[in-house]
Amino acid sequence: MWGGRFAEGPAAVMREINASLPFDKRLWRQDIAGSKAHVAMLAAQGIVSAEDGAAISEGLDRVAAEYGETLPDDLALEDIHMATESRLAQLIGTPAGRLHTARSRNDQVATDFRLWVRDAIDAVDQGLAAFQRALVTRAGEHADSVMPGFTHLQVAQPVTLGHHLMAYYEMASRDRSRFNDARTRLNRSPLGAAALAGTGFPIDRAATAAALGFDGPTDNSLDSVSDRDFALDYLMAATQCALHLSRLAEEVILWASQPFGFVRLSDQWSTGSSIMPQKRNPDAAELVRGHAGRIQGCMVALTTTMKGLPLAYSKDMQDDKPPVFEAHDLLALSLAAMTGMVETLDFRIDRMRAAAEMGFATATDLADWLVRQADIPFREAHHITGRAVKLAEAKGIALDRLTLEEMRDIDPRIDARVFDVLSVDASVAARASHGGTAPVRVREAVAAARRQLGMDA
Amino acid sequence: MWGGRFAEGPAAVMREINASLPFDKRLWRQDIAGSKAHVAMLAAQGIVSAEDGAAISEGLDRVAAEYGETLPDDLALEDIHMATESRLAQLIGTPAGRLHTARSRNDQVATDFRLWVRDAIDAVDQGLAAFQRALVTRAGEHADSVMPGFTHLQVAQPVTLGHHLMAYYEMASRDRSRFNDARTRLNRSPLGAAALAGTGFPIDRAATAAALGFDGPTDNSLDSVSDRDFALDYLMAATQCALHLSRLAEEVILWASQPFGFVRLSDQWSTGSSIMPQKRNPDAAELVRGHAGRIQGCMVALTTTMKGLPLAYSKDMQDDKPPVFEAHDLLALSLAAMTGMVETLDFRIDRMRAAAEMGFATATDLADWLVRQADIPFREAHHITGRAVKLAEAKGIALDRLTLEEMRDIDPRIDARVFDVLSVDASVAARASHGGTAPVRVREAVAAARRQLGMDA
Amino acid sequence: MWGGRFAEGPAAVMREINASLPFDKRLWRQDIAGSKAHVAMLAAQGIVSAEDGAAISEGLDRVAAEYGETLPDDLALEDIHMATESRLAQLIGTPAGRLHTARSRNDQVATDFRLWVRDAIDAVDQGLAAFQRALVTRAGEHADSVMPGFTHLQVAQPVTLGHHLMAYYEMASRDRSRFNDARTRLNRSPLGAAALAGTGFPIDRAATAAALGFDGPTDNSLDSVSDRDFALDYLMAATQCALHLSRLAEEVILWASQPFGFVRLSDQWSTGSSIMPQKRNPDAAELVRGHAGRIQGCMVALTTTMKGLPLAYSKDMQDDKPPVFEAHDLLALSLAAMTGMVETLDFRIDRMRAAAEMGFATATDLADWLVRQADIPFREAHHITGRAVKLAEAKGIALDRLTLEEMRDIDPRIDARVFDVLSVDASVAARASHGGTAPVRVREAVAAARRQLGMDA
Amino acid sequence: MWGGRFAEGPAAVMREINASLPFDKRLWRQDIAGSKAHVAMLAAQGIVSAEDGAAISEGLDRVAAEYGETLPDDLALEDIHMATESRLAQLIGTPAGRLHTARSRNDQVATDFRLWVRDAIDAVDQGLAAFQRALVTRAGEHADSVMPGFTHLQVAQPVTLGHHLMAYYEMASRDRSRFNDARTRLNRSPLGAAALAGTGFPIDRAATAAALGFDGPTDNSLDSVSDRDFALDYLMAATQCALHLSRLAEEVILWASQPFGFVRLSDQWSTGSSIMPQKRNPDAAELVRGHAGRIQGCMVALTTTMKGLPLAYSKDMQDDKPPVFEAHDLLALSLAAMTGMVETLDFRIDRMRAAAEMGFATATDLADWLVRQADIPFREAHHITGRAVKLAEAKGIALDRLTLEEMRDIDPRIDARVFDVLSVDASVAARASHGGTAPVRVREAVAAARRQLGMDA
Repeated sequence: MWGGRFAEGPAAVMREINASLPFDKRLWRQDIAGSKAHVAMLAAQGIVSAEDGAAISEGLDRVAAEYGETLPDDLALEDIHMATESRLAQLIGTPAGRLHTARSRNDQVATDFRLWVRDAIDAVDQGLAAFQRALVTRAGEHADSVMPGFTHLQVAQPVTLGHHLMAYYEMASRDRSRFNDARTRLNRSPLGAAALAGTGFPIDRAATAAALGFDGPTDNSLDSVSDRDFALDYLMAATQCALHLSRLAEEVILWASQPFGFVRLSDQWSTGSSIMPQKRNPDAAELVRGHAGRIQGCMVALTTTMKGLPLAYSKDMQDDKPPVFEAHDLLALSLAAMTGMVETLDFRIDRMRAAAEMGFATATDLADWLVRQADIPFREAHHITGRAVKLAEAKGIALDRLTLEEMRDIDPRIDARVFDVLSVDASVAARASHGGTAPVRVREAVAAARRQLGMDA
Repeated sequence: MWGGRFAEGPAAVMREINASLPFDKRLWRQDIAGSKAHVAMLAAQGIVSAEDGAAISEGLDRVAAEYGETLPDDLALEDIHMATESRLAQLIGTPAGRLHTARSRNDQVATDFRLWVRDAIDAVDQGLAAFQRALVTRAGEHADSVMPGFTHLQVAQPVTLGHHLMAYYEMASRDRSRFNDARTRLNRSPLGAAALAGTGFPIDRAATAAALGFDGPTDNSLDSVSDRDFALDYLMAATQCALHLSRLAEEVILWASQPFGFVRLSDQWSTGSSIMPQKRNPDAAELVRGHAGRIQGCMVALTTTMKGLPLAYSKDMQDDKPPVFEAHDLLALSLAAMTGMVETLDFRIDRMRAAAEMGFATATDLADWLVRQADIPFREAHHITGRAVKLAEAKGIALDRLTLEEMRDIDPRIDARVFDVLSVDASVAARASHGGTAPVRVREAVAAARRQLGMDA
Repeated sequence: MWGGRFAEGPAAVMREINASLPFDKRLWRQDIAGSKAHVAMLAAQGIVSAEDGAAISEGLDRVAAEYGETLPDDLALEDIHMATESRLAQLIGTPAGRLHTARSRNDQVATDFRLWVRDAIDAVDQGLAAFQRALVTRAGEHADSVMPGFTHLQVAQPVTLGHHLMAYYEMASRDRSRFNDARTRLNRSPLGAAALAGTGFPIDRAATAAALGFDGPTDNSLDSVSDRDFALDYLMAATQCALHLSRLAEEVILWASQPFGFVRLSDQWSTGSSIMPQKRNPDAAELVRGHAGRIQGCMVALTTTMKGLPLAYSKDMQDDKPPVFEAHDLLALSLAAMTGMVETLDFRIDRMRAAAEMGFATATDLADWLVRQADIPFREAHHITGRAVKLAEAKGIALDRLTLEEMRDIDPRIDARVFDVLSVDASVAARASHGGTAPVRVREAVAAARRQLGMDA
Repeated sequence: MWGGRFAEGPAAVMREINASLPFDKRLWRQDIAGSKAHVAMLAAQGIVSAEDGAAISEGLDRVAAEYGETLPDDLALEDIHMATESRLAQLIGTPAGRLHTARSRNDQVATDFRLWVRDAIDAVDQGLAAFQRALVTRAGEHADSVMPGFTHLQVAQPVTLGHHLMAYYEMASRDRSRFNDARTRLNRSPLGAAALAGTGFPIDRAATAAALGFDGPTDNSLDSVSDRDFALDYLMAATQCALHLSRLAEEVILWASQPFGFVRLSDQWSTGSSIMPQKRNPDAAELVRGHAGRIQGCMVALTTTMKGLPLAYSKDMQDDKPPVFEAHDLLALSLAAMTGMVETLDFRIDRMRAAAEMGFATATDLADWLVRQADIPFREAHHITGRAVKLAEAKGIALDRLTLEEMRDIDPRIDARVFDVLSVDASVAARASHGGTAPVRVREAVAAARRQLGMDA
């Protein structure tokens, strides 16, 4: 199977295992930006002449323009950094050789990769904001829509659909906070750490850091070229975000199943079957759920790779980029797909309400009423409620369809006011504690979120 | 093998799989604190009488006193929350039944576990500070000690031992920052979210949050009982911290090996052999390295468990505690052991210096000198250096033992000043860029770190 | 938090990180058996005297008898091997010192752990056989019971419940095959590999191997003490087994939810609520699903720990036992619980049948009929079927409730025979290909499985 | 960042998340083979006419010929199966529509992927055999070469290099056994399971199984389309294999470091530096070590994805292929690179011997001699040895350089014969137990391995 592939012999194997160009060419924009900042600093510090500096900078612009058309793929060039330097030499000759002064591939690649991950974080943050806007919009529409709240996937208490959707808004908020923390920690420039020990050239690391939008230079050159925490921070935040999306995906799949029937997926986000037009496979949701596994795999790949590596740079660390690139692509797709699904889900609120009404979901409300109105101890209230539910179940009716007489037969302390709390609407309205499911609370939460997201400006 | 164990039949299996008491009794302090805050609020809000509130609060103190002696282990009690409630009922009778008003086990366990993780974070932060103090102290002693800096585990350039140790100070700083971010995100109180939907009782969630040291209540009740991000944040920060420790552990093991011989482990942190008194097995370092694997396993356990769980609480989430407890115990031990090792390592700086001198580690310095002093283009400077190294290698001597004539035979532009840069001391002194390995930089970094750690107060 | 715990200082930290006794005492039976086999061989080879051999062997029996009462817990003894040797010396004096001749802790622990894992495999195999018997019994009862077959959790085609249950029988068969492969590969004795290089004593490794039920000795002493493949094989087989159980657990949870209502859990395997007597939380199933995460975590712990360890024994490998023990306990519980659930599930086959009839699940049967009876090309048959389903959907009826006229309006080539295939019973009966869902196939599969399991003897 | 990419809107997102063509086109050979076997069976069974069968088969050959030139990349085609069917329809018209009779994409993709994994296993087996041949060849050359055997990376006892290399031969043997077990378990044909329930067409599953080299058809159609055990078996075997390679890689990196200096890497398998010609970075070994992390990540990706999926096919399972493909590519490269390294490593046996002699590695031999020759109890023998080592250490000489008088001062029972065991050569020669390090044993092991591998035919 690979006999043919490596027919050329060891040289081909070594070239293929060693070259990172096939994946790291994705860093080209960051590599050009980093090199331009570096050479500008070298010229400003008088380490290269102004003339050479200008020649290099213009040459880099020309390389960038070429890359905009087509990226290199010759494995002999090894990586995007060598490819750029080699092309620069072809374009501008001798001065190209001065670009690498006071720099090493070790700090260069660390800088490029940080810049890339920073861009990735910014992209995810935008994706999360769009996801939140979709959630908030739909939550606002459904602040009053009643659905069963589940624990153990058993109907527990009625909740509002808006409240349920806003739970995901909270998760996304934590995700944004986590990515933001990662960004802050990442945002120091390793450029100038050189191979591992710093350099004797009179460089200005603060200048290159500022030029590249970093908050300042890193403080230890050995650490700077050995550190991949920023990539792990990204992968860990991505994993948590993917887990949140996988939970919503699971719910979309459940809700779209015929026994639930809580939603109808739009054509856009499902695949059909010419033979069964009623069938809408929630492919996108399933893939989002599946991608959580792969994103976790990417995280484990890098944590495992980093374990036990002595300082400073080891080549194992070249395996940092494929998992980050893969996780980012999967997360970006997952976020975009889930946002699209939320925007277009057709909620069948009649089915949701019916399910909420069927599961004796307001039994807790009866018990709470007994505690509050009749001052019955909690545990006794529970037992009374249990008898009422048993009777309703035996009669095959909802709790609020029992007659007052039937109720009073169970416990004479019950009076007509009890019916105020037995409907699902009364139940959700009552749960008005901070963060509760009551429509009034949901509307407040939605309003606060809209302000946060700048949606009403 | 388990036939005997489950001889009692299904009831025994169910009891064993269902009960969390064997591990969650570790939450007892947090559980008591949470219940006391809750009942104080219930009384303040008039939901329970002042009398009942006082009885419950005093009863809880008595339970806590008992727990201080011995913890419950009857699986029939299922979990620490039931155990406490049950014991409270025995101690104070009927009022005990009012403690659970406006609360559910779902928000109760979420609160307790958050409080526990917060304490764990604080403990790790102290452990990391102690680790940093050890590093900084040793780094200050060895700001001038020269050792080989490695890349690819090949001798690359001389560095100072102080600089090398300070790289781990940086890692620990990021770890503290990461745990601190986790703490901030965690520090919202889920108490009052009740089963999943909030409650109709007029509770004051802000009050219980404040009483328990939270920054405020969480904002969505469904999310509050479904969320385990705070546990994942802990596990992910712990994994990164463990990876850093595993790298230092790897270095200690390498350095203690006879071929390296860079350190001699203290008796305390190694195991010997009656037969080979010269042997010092770096057991503690090996276990720290190994524990990184297990801590990562704990993280993967919980991420995998959380994947695809629909809202709200699912019983799978009971599996959140064992991995967190295990990871914390392993991390606490690892930090304490590594701190102790750093404090007591006997650095054999003569061996380090000799290794730095043998590897032609100053070849880069020669090349840089040619660029700077003779204005030779970088690439040509490299080739000249290569020829010098080849000659020294052939003669079996260090680079700075070549004569000026031999040097000038290679390239006549070389003059006597070159010897100023060829020694390992000159090499490290030269690398004085920000974050570089020069003793002057290391001393500054150490001084800044000492201020940060409050070591000179 | 751990300040107090390690108040004693470094000695306490080292003792705690270094000692494996708290977990490896679980190996005591295997340790005694291994030592008895070893000393019998030493005596047979004349390496120790017959008298000393007998004294040691009897002493070991006494230690074993004591362990049957209570196991040691003094961390100063470090591990179960030292504890045994130390106790033996107290009991029999000087000859105890000869037990360790031609043996090292490295081969001793490798032997003990292999023996333990072999027992664990045998226990799991029995657990899997019991699980299979439960599946086969219930499948036999429900060879004709019709339920919806799902793809994408959408109703796809009717299947029989017996067929569905037998899918898990197949998974369990592969699990047993996988554990059996692991057992075969494990079953070589490392005893006699000594520290790492073998020994100069004239030992008989074949004899100790045979005495301990191994197929023979291992062939390379360095590998023998460095290898933990057998533990990984166990963990990987356990992970796959847990994944299978997690899939069935997911289905039990789904089926027990009110919208599905396909099963009613027995009291034994669910937890109720005094307030909602109709509620049956599928706690056991949820925990089985959750445990799959933790078991995977155990596997990752050990794979990560083993990565990149140089030969021969490294202390990191002491971290092999906790994940294996934990995974085994969780898997044993999961298997026992899932077996109990399968045995006692109350299948609501009326609800299953109703769900199968509602989803137009026989649309494929109509298309297949058109291909077979009317020789209509597949794709055209699909479109005709689509129109029929659309009509039935619009009328809110099942496909087989359309009249022949309505059918013929859609395509005149349809005739009355079509109704032979449109019922769910006809549909499942027709799928009689090898491995298909037809009751006749299910009964054959059940009969074959019963023979395989020796259930009819 | 992805705003631009998905500018087209939701349709582009859905197409990209849903399409598997970019990766599953790698299955094209297997897909063509599976379809040809299927259509041959359909014709043999009279389900399609002989004429149509021939047209389809020839058409598939034409598609295959085209694929040999260039593979499709239009995402609208979704996957390689659709791409093939669509192209077939263009080439041969109507009969193409009959190919999919009695088959579904679910069993088709399961069949194709099994065939691919089977090929991958066969390729890995060849790679492992080549790796073993390289090990055995070098082990044969170095059956007598003495090196230090390490435990805890501390010099423990002398071993032979041949013995050390043969430890990896054993690991590779277990790897082959594991892959072979996976192959056996995999080798059943799911073709004919159809969508999930089997089919009503009179298909002959045994025939298609035989045509595709399977041992027979699978026995449960639901399981057949839901099962990905074969992919997990592959990934788990690959992970263990990668772990073994990572251990050898770690040793190569250690041995190539200047302080060890046990090997010199060939130019082919290292990268140099124009500036430091003596430097040989072990890039290939580092990447092999790093790849173990990524391969483990691939395994975790799929185990996580499969957790908790209800039967039968879920779209999440489309995420099965990328991790398997990636793991296979990395493993193939790792094996080829490691084989090349082993073949070309320049072992510096003088340095190895010197290291073995310096570490008092024969102390155990002295103790054993005291037990055997002077019948001194083991523990006392240890203490005597300890004193001898201490003296040698103080004098800075090897153990066998002590004089007989010095020895007898320590213990008068020592006589001149002791020098027969104190040299490293005597030490390794003595360890002639089964599997021991003695050259005679190594030569036997090498000879047996050569026979096993057919190397002397």
